[in-house]
Amino acid sequence: MMNIAVIAIGDELLLGNVTDTNTPYIAAASDRIGLRMVYSCHVADDAEEIYAAIDLAMSKADVVITTGGLGPTKDDITKEVMCRYFGGEMRKDEAVARHVEEIFRKKGLPMNELTATQAMVPESCIVVENAVGTAPVMWFELDGKVLVSMPGVPREMRYVLDHEVIPRLCSRFELQSAQLHHLFIATEGISESDVNTSIETMADDSALRRVHVAYLPQTGYLKLRLDAEDAELLGAAEREFYSQFGVYVIFKGDITPAEALVNRLRACGLTVASAESCTGGNIAHQLTLIAGCSDVYQGSVVSYSNEVKMNLLGVSKHTLESYGAVSVEVAYQMAEGVAKAVGTDCAMATSGIAGPGGATPGKPVGTVCIAVKTPSGTTSDVYHFTGGRSEVIARATVKAVTLLLKGLGCQATRLS
Amino acid sequence: MMNIAVIAIGDELLLGNVTDTNTPYIAAASDRIGLRMVYSCHVADDAEEIYAAIDLAMSKADVVITTGGLGPTKDDITKEVMCRYFGGEMRKDEAVARHVEEIFRKKGLPMNELTATQAMVPESCIVVENAVGTAPVMWFELDGKVLVSMPGVPREMRYVLDHEVIPRLCSRFELQSAQLHHLFIATEGISESDVNTSIETMADDSALRRVHVAYLPQTGYLKLRLDAEDAELLGAAEREFYSQFGVYVIFKGDITPAEALVNRLRACGLTVASAESCTGGNIAHQLTLIAGCSDVYQGSVVSYSNEVKMNLLGVSKHTLESYGAVSVEVAYQMAEGVAKAVGTDCAMATSGIAGPGGATPGKPVGTVCIAVKTPSGTTSDVYHFTGGRSEVIARATVKAVTLLLKGLGCQATRLS
Repeated sequence: MMNIAVIAIGDELLLGNVTDTNTPYIAAASDRIGLRMVYSCHVADDAEEIYAAIDLAMSKADVVITTGGLGPTKDDITKEVMCRYFGGEMRKDEAVARHVEEIFRKKGLPMNELTATQAMVPESCIVVENAVGTAPVMWFELDGKVLVSMPGVPREMRYVLDHEVIPRLCSRFELQSAQLHHLFIATEGISESDVNTSIETMADDSALRRVHVAYLPQTGYLKLRLDAEDAELLGAAEREFYSQFGVYVIFKGDITPAEALVNRLRACGLTVASAESCTGGNIAHQLTLIAGCSDVYQGSVVSYSNEVKMNLLGVSKHTLESYGAVSVEVAYQMAEGVAKAVGTDCAMATSGIAGPGGATPGKPVGTVCIAVKTPSGTTSDVYHFTGGRSEVIARATVKAVTLLLKGLGCQATRLS
Repeated sequence: MMNIAVIAIGDELLLGNVTDTNTPYIAAASDRIGLRMVYSCHVADDAEEIYAAIDLAMSKADVVITTGGLGPTKDDITKEVMCRYFGGEMRKDEAVARHVEEIFRKKGLPMNELTATQAMVPESCIVVENAVGTAPVMWFELDGKVLVSMPGVPREMRYVLDHEVIPRLCSRFELQSAQLHHLFIATEGISESDVNTSIETMADDSALRRVHVAYLPQTGYLKLRLDAEDAELLGAAEREFYSQFGVYVIFKGDITPAEALVNRLRACGLTVASAESCTGGNIAHQLTLIAGCSDVYQGSVVSYSNEVKMNLLGVSKHTLESYGAVSVEVAYQMAEGVAKAVGTDCAMATSGIAGPGGATPGKPVGTVCIAVKTPSGTTSDVYHFTGGRSEVIARATVKAVTLLLKGLGCQATRLS
């Protein structure tokens, strides 16, 4: 199997102000075409650091991708290192120059010297089209290996990777897509170590012992990935998994809980709304990130204050006074109220204490009441989540979604 | 200045399923105590890879932090490498063993062999307390340098870093906090290269030429960080910046646009609600991520369908039929309607096409109408955002927030 390494160049990555999303994106894309990532690193916009990183990466992998270190304020360093490593001098690429001018013209921005220097490239490279940005993408070859220098801006990097680089790597190295078969399963209520221990104690010829199992802990649930080159073996592993752990399975597939919920609602021909207090719109946000959700998702009320709970959701003042906003009674009324106000078959409602402040006697930070309405009825319970404010919000969101998913009949073996 | 390097261990990082948030977190925390991050990398759960990475990192930095490679299914490899690199054998740490048993008892989970092995540590290390997880944090010293092996689970890593490791590094190396003074400024409407070019053409003795300027592009706006060891120089640079670029400044500080808006609303004694169609609850979510927002943020209506726009927000059916949902007229009515329904002084409303589907003649993907209501009145305009679905949502969210921030009187020099 061929190997790939990624070098992410940029002072901003080392300062910690920016999270590197390019490297995992490249890793996942590489995996889909059978390139195994063996190494990745972050280095500063420093010629010696970049040179050393390229040298190390080229010793470990057949394909090296660099991101960043380009763009009008810093690419002199990177291009100079490429010239030193791969040989040759700099030259002006006319196509890139015209492309840069075109982009600036469309945006109504004036050209300046810095943007003009973007058209200079090492003569040892082949320029790959960057349709969505000004930095030229450069493809170098050395001793049968390939290095591609890509933009650091995530949107540009992803576009060029998907549209230009991956296809070129496939044809250059005669790679086939999907050399490995994958199966993703999401579980709740069982720990990574218990799953691992159970599998380790199975018979040596069990399918689950013979496939690769990757544990991918998520916020609020555990995702597992089973990998195998043989599709039949993977199918046998899946059956063994459900036989052993079926009661913990929430859904199948490399999707989010929200996507699984939207799929299930669509399959059942049902609609949903959310009434949110402590999750503050995050349930709605997770659902609306999904293109085409409007056939099942109709709307939400974020009832952050008690007045809004009463006025828009019809929660009773007496119930609020008797039990407090963070109560199963109020959550129940919120779910019923939003289903009626928005006009949906189903609903999720949350009312809780995300923290760090807001705790009251008997209701510590992390206490969240979640109500879920389906055509079969409405349930409402109290849960306790760990972590800081954003984690309580994220966990409560996942819990509400998985409760509704289960409430709609999580017939695991029939999930598509 | 002392250097730090980070090694993130874990097959899952190389597979691309997980984004490494630990490294930037460590980088930012290091920066605050004057440790400069010079290098970081990801390596597989492979003994030779880990050993080589440690060796390289120790040659580049005074402090090395490793994350991951611990936990009940894989820590044998990492601990064995530590023993080889730092010398000595493994021993059982009684405090860790008791701690692990306590955690499992509280969670009601059964102990198993794997969890028991977590208490085994190299005898060459000092064990640092991990109050929030089972994996022991290990502190090694060699030739005046320090290596700390930390958990990979982000919540655990952050807790131990903040509460144990950073304080210990400060006392071990007599570091002072905040050796560098920083100023963050958020701008809109000017490109990174134009700011850079303007600064480069200033006189050599300008304050802005003498401080370090880091460009931190965000979704929908540009964040700059000015760094200087001299607080007075930084103040002079700030004055020069406002003098040159003041018209582009949205806010000051290492905060999000939503935080800047909440601060401004609080200072003005005003409340806000949002009515969201294509942003689907994301504006509400960004506001409610902020602890203590409830004095200014009251609630939202996510009116994903036209029925909800009419029934909950009072948008006129005639307006919807005449102009369509994605129109400045409908956005205007949504803003007015939610301010009335929720009872607030201000409001933001969005109605647009996040994509990839949904375009109509004259309204391509990325078209978003945004209305903003303040005590001075309500404005409504159409905007065009680039990118995929989640980017259009994110950019429209930032735009709505910055429009309201500006509408409330963005008196830049008086922002605190």
